[in-house]
Amino acid sequence: MAENGSKKIRLGMVGGGTGAFIGYVHRVASRIDGDYDLVAGALSSRPDVARESGRNIGLAEDRIYTDYAEMARAEAARPDGIQAVSIVTPNHMHFGPAKAFLEAGIHVICDKPITSTLADARALAEIKPKNGAKFLLTHNYTGYPLIRQAREMIESGRLGKIRVIQAEYPQDWLTEATSDDNKQASWRTDPARSGAGGAIGDIGTHAYNLLRFVTGLTTEAVSADLTSFVPGRQLDDNVHILLRFEGGARGMLWASQVAVGSENGLQLRIYGEKGGLEWRQDNPNYMWFTEFGKPKQLLTRGGAISGNAASTMNVRIPSGHPEGYLEAFATLYSQFAEVIRGGGADYDGLLPTLRDGIEGMEFITASVKSSQNDGKWTKFSDV
Amino acid sequence: MAENGSKKIRLGMVGGGTGAFIGYVHRVASRIDGDYDLVAGALSSRPDVARESGRNIGLAEDRIYTDYAEMARAEAARPDGIQAVSIVTPNHMHFGPAKAFLEAGIHVICDKPITSTLADARALAEIKPKNGAKFLLTHNYTGYPLIRQAREMIESGRLGKIRVIQAEYPQDWLTEATSDDNKQASWRTDPARSGAGGAIGDIGTHAYNLLRFVTGLTTEAVSADLTSFVPGRQLDDNVHILLRFEGGARGMLWASQVAVGSENGLQLRIYGEKGGLEWRQDNPNYMWFTEFGKPKQLLTRGGAISGNAASTMNVRIPSGHPEGYLEAFATLYSQFAEVIRGGGADYDGLLPTLRDGIEGMEFITASVKSSQNDGKWTKFSDV
Amino acid sequence: MAENGSKKIRLGMVGGGTGAFIGYVHRVASRIDGDYDLVAGALSSRPDVARESGRNIGLAEDRIYTDYAEMARAEAARPDGIQAVSIVTPNHMHFGPAKAFLEAGIHVICDKPITSTLADARALAEIKPKNGAKFLLTHNYTGYPLIRQAREMIESGRLGKIRVIQAEYPQDWLTEATSDDNKQASWRTDPARSGAGGAIGDIGTHAYNLLRFVTGLTTEAVSADLTSFVPGRQLDDNVHILLRFEGGARGMLWASQVAVGSENGLQLRIYGEKGGLEWRQDNPNYMWFTEFGKPKQLLTRGGAISGNAASTMNVRIPSGHPEGYLEAFATLYSQFAEVIRGGGADYDGLLPTLRDGIEGMEFITASVKSSQNDGKWTKFSDV
Amino acid sequence: MAENGSKKIRLGMVGGGTGAFIGYVHRVASRIDGDYDLVAGALSSRPDVARESGRNIGLAEDRIYTDYAEMARAEAARPDGIQAVSIVTPNHMHFGPAKAFLEAGIHVICDKPITSTLADARALAEIKPKNGAKFLLTHNYTGYPLIRQAREMIESGRLGKIRVIQAEYPQDWLTEATSDDNKQASWRTDPARSGAGGAIGDIGTHAYNLLRFVTGLTTEAVSADLTSFVPGRQLDDNVHILLRFEGGARGMLWASQVAVGSENGLQLRIYGEKGGLEWRQDNPNYMWFTEFGKPKQLLTRGGAISGNAASTMNVRIPSGHPEGYLEAFATLYSQFAEVIRGGGADYDGLLPTLRDGIEGMEFITASVKSSQNDGKWTKFSDV
Repeated sequence: MAENGSKKIRLGMVGGGTGAFIGYVHRVASRIDGDYDLVAGALSSRPDVARESGRNIGLAEDRIYTDYAEMARAEAARPDGIQAVSIVTPNHMHFGPAKAFLEAGIHVICDKPITSTLADARALAEIKPKNGAKFLLTHNYTGYPLIRQAREMIESGRLGKIRVIQAEYPQDWLTEATSDDNKQASWRTDPARSGAGGAIGDIGTHAYNLLRFVTGLTTEAVSADLTSFVPGRQLDDNVHILLRFEGGARGMLWASQVAVGSENGLQLRIYGEKGGLEWRQDNPNYMWFTEFGKPKQLLTRGGAISGNAASTMNVRIPSGHPEGYLEAFATLYSQFAEVIRGGGADYDGLLPTLRDGIEGMEFITASVKSSQNDGKWTKFSDV
Repeated sequence: MAENGSKKIRLGMVGGGTGAFIGYVHRVASRIDGDYDLVAGALSSRPDVARESGRNIGLAEDRIYTDYAEMARAEAARPDGIQAVSIVTPNHMHFGPAKAFLEAGIHVICDKPITSTLADARALAEIKPKNGAKFLLTHNYTGYPLIRQAREMIESGRLGKIRVIQAEYPQDWLTEATSDDNKQASWRTDPARSGAGGAIGDIGTHAYNLLRFVTGLTTEAVSADLTSFVPGRQLDDNVHILLRFEGGARGMLWASQVAVGSENGLQLRIYGEKGGLEWRQDNPNYMWFTEFGKPKQLLTRGGAISGNAASTMNVRIPSGHPEGYLEAFATLYSQFAEVIRGGGADYDGLLPTLRDGIEGMEFITASVKSSQNDGKWTKFSDV
Repeated sequence: MAENGSKKIRLGMVGGGTGAFIGYVHRVASRIDGDYDLVAGALSSRPDVARESGRNIGLAEDRIYTDYAEMARAEAARPDGIQAVSIVTPNHMHFGPAKAFLEAGIHVICDKPITSTLADARALAEIKPKNGAKFLLTHNYTGYPLIRQAREMIESGRLGKIRVIQAEYPQDWLTEATSDDNKQASWRTDPARSGAGGAIGDIGTHAYNLLRFVTGLTTEAVSADLTSFVPGRQLDDNVHILLRFEGGARGMLWASQVAVGSENGLQLRIYGEKGGLEWRQDNPNYMWFTEFGKPKQLLTRGGAISGNAASTMNVRIPSGHPEGYLEAFATLYSQFAEVIRGGGADYDGLLPTLRDGIEGMEFITASVKSSQNDGKWTKFSDV
Repeated sequence: MAENGSKKIRLGMVGGGTGAFIGYVHRVASRIDGDYDLVAGALSSRPDVARESGRNIGLAEDRIYTDYAEMARAEAARPDGIQAVSIVTPNHMHFGPAKAFLEAGIHVICDKPITSTLADARALAEIKPKNGAKFLLTHNYTGYPLIRQAREMIESGRLGKIRVIQAEYPQDWLTEATSDDNKQASWRTDPARSGAGGAIGDIGTHAYNLLRFVTGLTTEAVSADLTSFVPGRQLDDNVHILLRFEGGARGMLWASQVAVGSENGLQLRIYGEKGGLEWRQDNPNYMWFTEFGKPKQLLTRGGAISGNAASTMNVRIPSGHPEGYLEAFATLYSQFAEVIRGGGADYDGLLPTLRDGIEGMEFITASVKSSQNDGKWTKFSDV
């Protein structure tokens, strides 16, 4: 990755007060490649938390806000105002800030899923961003170098026509009922804040987005069986989905928050007429590649494989020196920085957009509907 | 495993001529623990092949048969006649020999699936075996020591109530169209000899049988999406199935013969309220066990775990000295030998029976029917 | 592997009474491919144990012996006497039986190390076997198909000139002091029965034999640091050795009986000018192969690799169906059976011989001497 | 890890011009936790490269230097001068800058090995830093959370008294002769710039430092066999070392730059009277822990294990979200920032110091000497 410290972008943040997981992740991601300076924030809706959180990360007093709308107004008015903002609030609080900043001409970096309802997602697509402000959805797993490489290999035909996709994303952290004290758990299991999907929205969308990103296939319909195993839980904590794609490929998607022994086991396996690829997020520097009739090969991030631009473009350090989750996240940030600067880099299709966010909501909504209809095959156009 | 060389059982074989994979496997399995003497056979329906194959493995000339019915008659009449017979023909040729030998009072060891149609399987259950002749179905993967241990751990509550089951059995050997020269492939892809299921019958049943064996759960219904990817192939080569179990557990089952890079990747993962287990057949001496909130443990065949009889009962050599497919197969043979001798060993529930064979056919038939009905949830009682 | 049941070889056994680990292993190995009938034995020096053990495995009363010398005499005199004998006693009891049976014209299959002293090993080489009786040393790990394949790959230059060898064999079963009740442990830690080496004789020789078998390199000298960690133990339980080979290659060999967490971790890694190979015994159906500058390949037993006879010759069942320790052991037995029958099969260099046994003792003796001399580089010709 | 953006430290850099691997790594490491602002640099001894590299990363023109001595003087004189400097030049260029900045009262962060000669290292210890300027040696692998956890587990007796250490660091990037164009390779294989050790200085010291860091054992003596396999290479590219520690523990250390198929295979395995630990750098979020007689446990970074402060202190994101090489490096930077701020955090023994640097040079020098003396056991006090 290139360093471009001379052209830092002024960044703000909505959400992400002290103790918030994903806000912290976004901040680290924005720092790794040195493309951003975080200079303003509405880090919490609670004024005291907002203030203390802002001070803690070094914001100037006059750029610590307690209200995102005020922040959008004030920053747009400053000559040194922020050029981009990261939205890292719970799902139901994505729409408002996204609209406000886009309409203020400030680029938006938004955590996934894009909104808590499909209607909100579609409404967001109707907004007219001022001055061509752009939108990045942080489906961060698409930033892993080997995921980019997998996409390129499939695009260039190394696997032949795709037949079978196995995607899964098991976790176990919600195996037992959670107390309200658990900040991460409480909003994710609350329909009012998270939306109609539990596991399917929090992690199922990641798995779905990843398989779409890598294969480029168009989904035809889904058949879902969503379950909520923990007594009292309102949202699904286990997701079984069958998928059909245009052209005939078939898929399975499993997401779970109650798979004991699974930390963050996102895995993608893709099989075509000529070859197969297998990748796991928890050891992301390796990917299995098999050409039919030949031994399996273990591809490594940045390691030896011929004729693949993606295998080097997204890599910071040599193979054998593991990169991880934060670096993959940072790749989205730094490539979006290039887009903001208008540097001409062509990341078309590589950086997740509003369109990907809407499709994610369609996936959630269609799956929930299918599950309610006893697994009836459901098209995205039906929701 | 005990050796019991002083009480060898006289064994015959139907099918398994030179070049046949599974017949060879049965013979090795019968030899490993020294419980059987193979003394008679109708190894092929082609007389010359039957004769040469018989000589090759050391059968006496007068006990090389070319017809199973004749063999059943002749052996039942001899004072030194066979006490048991292994049936290792293609699926559609299981029913006839099984009936003939059971009715002749000779114990039957039959390869899976039990028959090529559900009707045949149910008919077999109506037969009256002479002299209490017994029936063993070689769902060989149930013979792996760690699979026995998993079953015992679940039975004794180590995982708590089961919630989620992930079973899969990917292979890639039928990725391309096969010539008629490939003996293994040709009958497995031919509905007349294999039955209504392709991958689902050949390997899907193994995965299904294994999850049933280990969890003891009763299946409520299946929703299936069966596909035949290779042009011209009449039977399915890729199987996606959702399962519902009594008590609320949910499962997914994937079987494939076109998953490039998969040799024989049978895998079982089971998650309960308190713990999880994960096992792969291609490295069968290891099993992951996680108690919720504790580090994953790597259990080893014959290795350290407290209070588990199964962990030692089915083991031949110390942990670290890998046992494999043939030993697991042999365990079924040697424990069935004990049953034949009436030695009192209690293998109830451990050795697959006619009832398991019928359920396997119900699973195949219900899945095929569900797939034809666009994934409609289908009960076994509906087929 | 071919089956040759029509030409079974009559086999005897010395040692291997009930409860003995390695005697049981030899018996299973002799059965797997159906080449042998075990018909006589002096299974213990204690008459009652010998008798009960013999009955247990089905020996006729008149062929249960309590003395190996008597057994050699009697069997040589019978028209249906044994043609081969397996010697599975503790190390110090190898020489006597080996001499007796070879001089009686009976082929000998002897467990390793060949003797308990180098002098005995050299004396054995002076014996004149009657009627060309042959000798097999069961360095069983050489029977693994991928080990055979590795040997062939190196011989044919796939790795280029060998530079570095890393061999290791960690176990942990002697981490604590053992009671006399532990039959396996007690003789292995007793110099009178085991010889001058502890871990180096029991497992170090296996690792050494394996690296020699696979690379074909000639050892120039060793520098050793042997340690006995457990208080009161007389023999080494941890072995660190540096090796120099003719032609300039270098090696390290680690063997340990106190490496907590290691069951039977024999591992061999070999690096040449053009490629590298890595293999572990505890998952023996896989081997890593890297050509410099290309991705690592995972070779599988019986799987796809071009132009390698060894990759198929020693395989029983298709890749993905794991074979293990007993099958590798059985391969030595069945190929020795071919040699006994004089069938013309050329296993020269593949089946471990008396010469390998002597070199194993030289390795032990030179290492012990080097360690006593503070790691002085020691040649085998110096001991 | 805490964020402390309100108290950023002004940082300079010596070396690390465009294209330099380790300089880039230091810059990323300094950014990840937001503790530093890089504001000055003498990034190259070639003025044009220094200037362009400085501009590229956003340095102000007047703080781009072409001479480190001038930089030390000028920055010490500025009110907003740098508080710390990173030295990322080739080994022989560490001493001069380190001395200059320490004597100017500027904290030094220095890449390893500390110098190119033991004499330089010892001379560095004689310098009187102005104003208590501190020194950090970036033995970055000590920053991995599980390495910290291993150290704490051993310190608290979880393994019992240590017996055996196996450390290794294989790479393959110098398998073939390198051209002068390869900047990374050329100075590392040049005695004038790298010092007396090749692989032993570049990677052997890492492995040595790591085993010392984790076990706390004191080295008694080393016996080494260093080899240079590639024709024309002046320095060792393969290192075999035996180690003896006070108290009786024994070790082996292998480092190689010609082990084909090894990317950056740093591995540490430690065995004590009660337990064992195994860790690999290329998958650093996992560590095996075995208590004797119990199943192996797979500990995860930030995952479940009781009573271990280190298991959480050095972690940024939840288990299952992999952290890598850059994060471990960053931990040294951010904890050194706390030390610089005098915040009272007690990292005594955790952050590598000048004393560790000297011991690293003693290790290199003693090993080279031992190898020249045919493996004679050599104490650090002898060099």
